Amino acid sequence: MSTNSSQMPSARELYSLDNPIFCCYVFWATVLVAKMLLMSTLTAVQRFRYKLLGLVPLGLRRKIFPNQEDLFFKNTEVQFNDPHVERVRRAHRNDMENILPYFIMALIYISTNPDATVACNLFRVASVARLVHTLVYAVYPVPQPARVIAFASMQLITFYMAAVVALRTLRFI
Amino acid sequence: MSTNSSQMPSARELYSLDNPIFCCYVFWATVLVAKMLLMSTLTAVQRFRYKLLGLVPLGLRRKIFPNQEDLFFKNTEVQFNDPHVERVRRAHRNDMENILPYFIMALIYISTNPDATVACNLFRVASVARLVHTLVYAVYPVPQPARVIAFASMQLITFYMAAVVALRTLRFI
Amino acid sequence: MSTNSSQMPSARELYSLDNPIFCCYVFWATVLVAKMLLMSTLTAVQRFRYKLLGLVPLGLRRKIFPNQEDLFFKNTEVQFNDPHVERVRRAHRNDMENILPYFIMALIYISTNPDATVACNLFRVASVARLVHTLVYAVYPVPQPARVIAFASMQLITFYMAAVVALRTLRFI
Repeated sequence: MSTNSSQMPSARELYSLDNPIFCCYVFWATVLVAKMLLMSTLTAVQRFRYKLLGLVPLGLRRKIFPNQEDLFFKNTEVQFNDPHVERVRRAHRNDMENILPYFIMALIYISTNPDATVACNLFRVASVARLVHTLVYAVYPVPQPARVIAFASMQLITFYMAAVVALRTLRFI
Repeated sequence: MSTNSSQMPSARELYSLDNPIFCCYVFWATVLVAKMLLMSTLTAVQRFRYKLLGLVPLGLRRKIFPNQEDLFFKNTEVQFNDPHVERVRRAHRNDMENILPYFIMALIYISTNPDATVACNLFRVASVARLVHTLVYAVYPVPQPARVIAFASMQLITFYMAAVVALRTLRFI
Repeated sequence: MSTNSSQMPSARELYSLDNPIFCCYVFWATVLVAKMLLMSTLTAVQRFRYKLLGLVPLGLRRKIFPNQEDLFFKNTEVQFNDPHVERVRRAHRNDMENILPYFIMALIYISTNPDATVACNLFRVASVARLVHTLVYAVYPVPQPARVIAFASMQLITFYMAAVVALRTLRFI
């Protein structure tokens, strides 16, 4: 479609859906964004759990809303230290600490026009690893080292991309 | 201006100020970035409030600095549980949980070359909703469901963009 | 290399390694991403410190793991309020609050095709300031105002970029 057939593709192809690497990045970034937004829902579910299900007597129900205006029910107080809620919030914070820098790192990694097979598989492994991380941390806690391995996978992939990019752009320090 | 008049505009037009959709994204992303940075200022204002205004007797003044080296005043201690400061910090964290993924999601949504009217209005509604969210959460707390509605607006818009993008790029899984 | 010699370069040049401004952004963004990821490592180091070094008697060793499944050692309990660990976590959170919005702001600032000298020096100063911020906050705490100055440097640079971008795109409100 384009008559520009230079060896080094221009940004036009790099950051468009004509570039399979960018498409792969876009797909998996979308999955991770959706996953991160669902963490808010999961936190809310943990806050309401016994309330909605009515599984426990009134006096023992969870009371875990952080703001005065969130107390939809009588017999509740502002509270911050429920272990189930805090576990989901730690998993969510860990997502922000790792996935958000990955989004930027992978995006600028594409500008180096990497090998398509390598790049796409890096995106796939990193993204699936974070899905596993959420499962074993926030949904169904399992013994270590499951979470450490899932955590390290995206971490190492991000460092690899950082090394590739830094070597390419080192003279612009 | 450009002689390239193909049906599917290239990235050249998509990610440049020649593209009105990108301009609209850029403007509202800038507003949201500025808003997020002002949350740090709002936290600092809450930390210093009574100190600077001198409204309360010395013994009752706020003592809400998290680090030893931040204790500019005598008669203060390290403290973490002031409700006014913690409210602003929760609002700030909620911003990070929602606005930062939105930035990436909206950016890659532009690569699908969406309808300009739809895309620009999505950016506008999502951004104004988050401004409202900050007002009703951190500046002047009002009863629910004001905050839930503001929160859900950007959440749903981000999910809509994610669905559009995922369907377009599903074969690159 | 390109025959396109218009006054206003297109996105093709703006978001590619042909554009020195983008290269400079990419290099320093990579440095900041790597720095942010190392904060997780620094937190883990603080959690394990005395354990690994064996510097203190068993009864006085740190017990600072947030999850039940993280208790690799006997004689430990779940704990959240160790001052050394919490200091690194506050520094990490401050990174997320400031560096992640900067990534987006600087990226869209490039779309305005700014003067190369100005833009590159803004990227350099902001990035080095955050490296200093981490040193004086999390690695070797020093008295204020060292941290406030480092914090304000990136904050002001981000606001400057926001002002430039907002003025250019104001009619797309």
